[in-house]
Amino acid sequence: MQRSKPTDKRVLVIGMGRFGSSLALELMAHGWEVLGMDSNSRLVQAYADSLTHTVVADATDDEALRQVGAHEFSRAVVSIGTQLEESILATSLLVDMEVPHIWAKAISRRHGRILQQIGAHQVVLPEHDMGERVAHLVSGRMLDYVEIEENFALGKTRAPREMLGRKLGDTGVRSRHGITVVCIKRHGDQFTYATAETVPQKGDVIVVAGKTNDVEKFAEIN
Amino acid sequence: MQRSKPTDKRVLVIGMGRFGSSLALELMAHGWEVLGMDSNSRLVQAYADSLTHTVVADATDDEALRQVGAHEFSRAVVSIGTQLEESILATSLLVDMEVPHIWAKAISRRHGRILQQIGAHQVVLPEHDMGERVAHLVSGRMLDYVEIEENFALGKTRAPREMLGRKLGDTGVRSRHGITVVCIKRHGDQFTYATAETVPQKGDVIVVAGKTNDVEKFAEIN
Amino acid sequence: MQRSKPTDKRVLVIGMGRFGSSLALELMAHGWEVLGMDSNSRLVQAYADSLTHTVVADATDDEALRQVGAHEFSRAVVSIGTQLEESILATSLLVDMEVPHIWAKAISRRHGRILQQIGAHQVVLPEHDMGERVAHLVSGRMLDYVEIEENFALGKTRAPREMLGRKLGDTGVRSRHGITVVCIKRHGDQFTYATAETVPQKGDVIVVAGKTNDVEKFAEIN
Amino acid sequence: MQRSKPTDKRVLVIGMGRFGSSLALELMAHGWEVLGMDSNSRLVQAYADSLTHTVVADATDDEALRQVGAHEFSRAVVSIGTQLEESILATSLLVDMEVPHIWAKAISRRHGRILQQIGAHQVVLPEHDMGERVAHLVSGRMLDYVEIEENFALGKTRAPREMLGRKLGDTGVRSRHGITVVCIKRHGDQFTYATAETVPQKGDVIVVAGKTNDVEKFAEIN
Amino acid sequence: MQRSKPTDKRVLVIGMGRFGSSLALELMAHGWEVLGMDSNSRLVQAYADSLTHTVVADATDDEALRQVGAHEFSRAVVSIGTQLEESILATSLLVDMEVPHIWAKAISRRHGRILQQIGAHQVVLPEHDMGERVAHLVSGRMLDYVEIEENFALGKTRAPREMLGRKLGDTGVRSRHGITVVCIKRHGDQFTYATAETVPQKGDVIVVAGKTNDVEKFAEIN
Amino acid sequence: MQRSKPTDKRVLVIGMGRFGSSLALELMAHGWEVLGMDSNSRLVQAYADSLTHTVVADATDDEALRQVGAHEFSRAVVSIGTQLEESILATSLLVDMEVPHIWAKAISRRHGRILQQIGAHQVVLPEHDMGERVAHLVSGRMLDYVEIEENFALGKTRAPREMLGRKLGDTGVRSRHGITVVCIKRHGDQFTYATAETVPQKGDVIVVAGKTNDVEKFAEIN
Amino acid sequence: MQRSKPTDKRVLVIGMGRFGSSLALELMAHGWEVLGMDSNSRLVQAYADSLTHTVVADATDDEALRQVGAHEFSRAVVSIGTQLEESILATSLLVDMEVPHIWAKAISRRHGRILQQIGAHQVVLPEHDMGERVAHLVSGRMLDYVEIEENFALGKTRAPREMLGRKLGDTGVRSRHGITVVCIKRHGDQFTYATAETVPQKGDVIVVAGKTNDVEKFAEIN
Amino acid sequence: MQRSKPTDKRVLVIGMGRFGSSLALELMAHGWEVLGMDSNSRLVQAYADSLTHTVVADATDDEALRQVGAHEFSRAVVSIGTQLEESILATSLLVDMEVPHIWAKAISRRHGRILQQIGAHQVVLPEHDMGERVAHLVSGRMLDYVEIEENFALGKTRAPREMLGRKLGDTGVRSRHGITVVCIKRHGDQFTYATAETVPQKGDVIVVAGKTNDVEKFAEIN
Repeated sequence: MQRSKPTDKRVLVIGMGRFGSSLALELMAHGWEVLGMDSNSRLVQAYADSLTHTVVADATDDEALRQVGAHEFSRAVVSIGTQLEESILATSLLVDMEVPHIWAKAISRRHGRILQQIGAHQVVLPEHDMGERVAHLVSGRMLDYVEIEENFALGKTRAPREMLGRKLGDTGVRSRHGITVVCIKRHGDQFTYATAETVPQKGDVIVVAGKTNDVEKFAEIN
Repeated sequence: MQRSKPTDKRVLVIGMGRFGSSLALELMAHGWEVLGMDSNSRLVQAYADSLTHTVVADATDDEALRQVGAHEFSRAVVSIGTQLEESILATSLLVDMEVPHIWAKAISRRHGRILQQIGAHQVVLPEHDMGERVAHLVSGRMLDYVEIEENFALGKTRAPREMLGRKLGDTGVRSRHGITVVCIKRHGDQFTYATAETVPQKGDVIVVAGKTNDVEKFAEIN
Repeated sequence: MQRSKPTDKRVLVIGMGRFGSSLALELMAHGWEVLGMDSNSRLVQAYADSLTHTVVADATDDEALRQVGAHEFSRAVVSIGTQLEESILATSLLVDMEVPHIWAKAISRRHGRILQQIGAHQVVLPEHDMGERVAHLVSGRMLDYVEIEENFALGKTRAPREMLGRKLGDTGVRSRHGITVVCIKRHGDQFTYATAETVPQKGDVIVVAGKTNDVEKFAEIN
Repeated sequence: MQRSKPTDKRVLVIGMGRFGSSLALELMAHGWEVLGMDSNSRLVQAYADSLTHTVVADATDDEALRQVGAHEFSRAVVSIGTQLEESILATSLLVDMEVPHIWAKAISRRHGRILQQIGAHQVVLPEHDMGERVAHLVSGRMLDYVEIEENFALGKTRAPREMLGRKLGDTGVRSRHGITVVCIKRHGDQFTYATAETVPQKGDVIVVAGKTNDVEKFAEIN
Repeated sequence: MQRSKPTDKRVLVIGMGRFGSSLALELMAHGWEVLGMDSNSRLVQAYADSLTHTVVADATDDEALRQVGAHEFSRAVVSIGTQLEESILATSLLVDMEVPHIWAKAISRRHGRILQQIGAHQVVLPEHDMGERVAHLVSGRMLDYVEIEENFALGKTRAPREMLGRKLGDTGVRSRHGITVVCIKRHGDQFTYATAETVPQKGDVIVVAGKTNDVEKFAEIN
Repeated sequence: MQRSKPTDKRVLVIGMGRFGSSLALELMAHGWEVLGMDSNSRLVQAYADSLTHTVVADATDDEALRQVGAHEFSRAVVSIGTQLEESILATSLLVDMEVPHIWAKAISRRHGRILQQIGAHQVVLPEHDMGERVAHLVSGRMLDYVEIEENFALGKTRAPREMLGRKLGDTGVRSRHGITVVCIKRHGDQFTYATAETVPQKGDVIVVAGKTNDVEKFAEIN
Repeated sequence: MQRSKPTDKRVLVIGMGRFGSSLALELMAHGWEVLGMDSNSRLVQAYADSLTHTVVADATDDEALRQVGAHEFSRAVVSIGTQLEESILATSLLVDMEVPHIWAKAISRRHGRILQQIGAHQVVLPEHDMGERVAHLVSGRMLDYVEIEENFALGKTRAPREMLGRKLGDTGVRSRHGITVVCIKRHGDQFTYATAETVPQKGDVIVVAGKTNDVEKFAEIN
Repeated sequence: MQRSKPTDKRVLVIGMGRFGSSLALELMAHGWEVLGMDSNSRLVQAYADSLTHTVVADATDDEALRQVGAHEFSRAVVSIGTQLEESILATSLLVDMEVPHIWAKAISRRHGRILQQIGAHQVVLPEHDMGERVAHLVSGRMLDYVEIEENFALGKTRAPREMLGRKLGDTGVRSRHGITVVCIKRHGDQFTYATAETVPQKGDVIVVAGKTNDVEKFAEIN
């Protein structure tokens, strides 16, 4: 597809709620051009100064979308809040406009499925995904957790007692726990990658990678 | 505090919406006992078979919370949806009951701030946090992204051309790009840790760690 | 597909509103078995005696649909009234259940388009289609009108003066007006097919077939 | 009545919803002048460019109707959506203005009956009528169906095997099935009238006329 | 019509609001049998002990009306409050049941007109009629007033000074004021008819009859 | 009280609904000056041309009432529709302003009682009063009916057979039925007073006066 | 009035909101019998164990009030929250029942005035009265303040420097400041009455009485 | 804290409802400068002339608060009505701005507790506090009552018979009843302080101080 040139750094963000606005601001911070769109003028007003362009428009109206040039974007994010119907209508229009990369936020699995059936390329479920992620932190053993792929996760945790004062290469942590220490953070310092020579100290925080289950278990051995 | 014994694997989850239920199910899957609570009987019904205990109760009512033994839990999650007021009331009650670990979901920064002022120990903003995370994926260069700490991130991406067919140890990727390859996934295979001997092939997916900026930039060199 | 055996004369009708109930009753009158479903118990009650089976259930709930065996039907009609969202959810579920023939009622062109994107096999727009059809009757020249195919229509009208008392074969109506008289109804009698020998009388009603335009014009020559 | 001169090709359409707008556009396409009227300015706006005249006015207000000259039209269509009350009020006013031809859309049989009691000349029930019509298509045997009169219908269907390769005059289809083939469509071609000499081929689509029952049964013999 | 036998003293009152209930209670007080009907069970409950029969039923439902035998009454009053639609539906059903005497309460002139178009035999406008009647009392000169027919009214007022102590036959009130004194009430006594011999005293209240205008003016001469 | 001079023919009417507007128009027709007031500008607009003055104002606001000079009127009518609260507030303010004659419309007996407790001088219950009055007409024997005082009524009815062709003075109607014929209307003529010499003819309509019960019974003897 | 015997210690409290329930509980604490009444069953439930009797009933319904014996109480408090209408209706009924002592809570001055016009004996305006009282504390000089009568107040404040270490009789505080010290509280002790011999110490808290203005000013001299 | 200089007599009052406006007006009457703030422009308008400054602004919006200089006040009162959420948001913002004296109105104990947890310095519960206070007046024995401190109260009551005509110093009221007479009001006169020489007369009103219980009991000895 020709429309998405390598230098095209523009994103259309439909829906200026919590998700959409956070996403838009983050994209701005990384040098993208963002067109923020919402039917709620108060929301649009709130981000008028922070985004490249903002527009008050009804994203469920074909005409309105075309007037803002939605069909010329190569990337669009449909982050329409709690209105299933509007989210579906807007996504349907973008699909018919053949926007090459459509991200859509869903509020339930079925909503997500419908967005896929219609033709959205990527679907995100913030409440659901964050719920699963936070579950791993509630135990108090892990400081952060993210599943990179089904059955492969990264976990941030304090270095367990058995590791302290020994080179990582000597701890046999991979064979015994099935995980690898990929980064380490000294107290008062920043994260850096870990090597076989790294010697964890008391209070160090590490990021380990491995199968979901192994990462879980490792966090509890402390 | 004595109440939270090492073997206490019970969590009280107040609010069975998307976030609360996903969190509760994930905890169940890892062997925790979960008491799910909501004032909406239909929601409670929906999770009656999947959680250890469920109860229809009003978490803004001191008496009701005590009757389900909320004050005896060492971990509680307040994941009350969109009702600022109810979320604050429930958190206030848990704080007065001196529950040692209170997680609370917020829907805005100010909401989060109030929950902290009241005494919640951890505050989560799903829509906001996911918005920021997804921003890094919209560019199409990264397949997943997570900020492990301020200014230190992990990114999943395809192995760039310049790496293919060479040992990681020889690519000088750390010095040139400031990032470390921590895991790798062969096509059709699962993720595993990467070593200096690992030779990425076309189509391999890698996870790299490094400063936020460096990870961002590395993803674009492909 | 094996599920739809020649003798399978069962239809699932979701939504017992005007459209759904009229359709269901008509099917019953022609010997089909109909399972009528609606989340509104009052509507279901109203048709409990007229349909083979009726059930109060939420067609947007996967579990509920399976319990009534929706996945075993080879024909389903989604006639959910004015709720775009519910119509889309129900259709999405039927598509994922791989029901072979899904008819869905839409209330707007975009709604219809979304139902197609999701995977509905046939989409009907009653208000829209009837509006177009009735337009042809408002002129007062035609008594009924239906477009059988794009640019081919049938029209019911009174036999025009120029035809009266002459054999149809002699009127040259085909060559002059581009239409064919296919049926005729004598005053006080029933419709029957017309032949070249048929001699229209004053007051007879005829059905003519032809190109849309020709049928239109013929109705005005009286 | 003098007011409706032969050349009066003007129609007043009250209610610019799905039915009214489709009807109005179809009338425009056939050269009629249409005055579209609705109390909803957004709807009126949407059709301002497509109809001869449009006006935002309350059709339940005697004064408003007179100001747009409603009493001077010889044809009016009341297609007010779902508001029984407004539909009745507008129709009552037109009746008192003695508009000669009043068409009114109803949403239920009783609504239709009231419109007749008040004095509407023709009543249409789109949802109901389309429901009955579509019922005949759900079986999958007929491609289209319309009842031209009580107990006389036209059906579009594929030519059944027993007819293929034989002149229609020889098939005895009238005597055996009680139906007449009135039009035929060759694959890739357009519809044309059928004669006794016509020889249906595999894949041809035919329109047959006959008693409702006979048309139904014929469609199933394939 | 045979159904309304001389001894048939039954009335169906639909709608137990202020008007309907006052009417029903008054009928009961005069020995009629009243069937009170309302869809609001609380209202029906309130009159269960005061009326012959009461029933909770939806008067817009043909079936429901027949079940209570509405079609067998010779007199029915539709006193449905503020819902134009329900009032019209119920009246339409009673008309189709050919109830011989249908009284219907309207809330506006147009509403009244529609009820007549549908076939109600008598229409009452309480707010409107009472408004007009009370207007005559606001002046403070008349104590009661009722227009018996267009341009003929009865007025209750104090006997004017010019009449006191003289025989009515001698006052020339008819010729001078155009009114007739028809009843008189002595202070502390009850009303009785007036004759030419009657001599009004100070404080007596009289009822006079005459042309609307003359009654008006007479009340002001005091 | 000095304020209400004999020539003061001004009335303040608060509330331009059915009752208030009918009352106001009737007063205008009899030469009074009327100030119509309502918080609903649409209603005020509707009567702007028919009343002496109209004003959009909130009658529950002391300041607003004073600005229109409410305290200078000697007669005020509070005809505020269905809002108990507003009716009470407005009446309370007029009482405190010491308006000498306050009429207030009530929608229930208790509402009426409260208005009296607050200090309204006259209370009207249109729905209730008309309900009672119409009850006497439903029987079909009386053509109109009004209770002039407790236990004294006037009824309009057709002259009964026993009276036809005889002088009223000879019929003994007073002694036998306890009623007096006060007016009579010849077919095609207007009402006039009746005397002992009057001879009713078939089809004449009469107004009779008498005790409530006697009037009732007389109407049935036909 | 005989009904209120010296030993009658019963109060009817209508409305179990904040004000009503606090009042009821305080009365209970002082040995009164309280019948708490509310139409909201949840509120009644909440106080079922704390009050002598509680009942779910509609205080705007004459019948309901009589059934709970409201007319036999000599003291009643109408503390119906924010519903002007219900507060007025209930008060009107109690007045007609001739309850000797009726207290009523108002939410505005006009509401209070209406309650008085109807016949309530005492009217309280909590929000308004507390607002005025708290105004005196916001300055930070006074610790509590209450106006005992128009222009006579009591104020709680710290003993000012000029008083410390001197007998009150010697300070001339009455002549110089116009106030009297009536009670004093030593640090760590309870309040007791002050005499001419009392010697305030640093940190003592005193209650002074005097004209509103003088109390105000005295609090600022510190 | 330096910001609150001795001469700083400015108060920010957020919420112009009954409580806030009464408080603000009282402060104005005592020479303070008040900035009244509300999001409801009608309320702000109503007090525009009575307060030093008024502003329509949303107190839950950080930006809006800063623009009116909220952070520069040393005293603020949050008197936001019935909206728990807004009250909490506004208080949270003032706390983060480190306003030294924050008074907040609560509508329930838990609301009050949350305001304290967030950091409000004083919390007022008008409905609750007035309810308790009025409870002491309902008995009819006391004319006013206020608890100055836990277990120390002042009560206004009529001088009991046993005191009349005797010097207070001789009545032994302190020893026998535990209370002190602190002020006295002669009939037709104003309050003044009481001394041992004061001789109460019939009809005098006194204010007594003492333990809550003793004041209660004393009021009943009359």
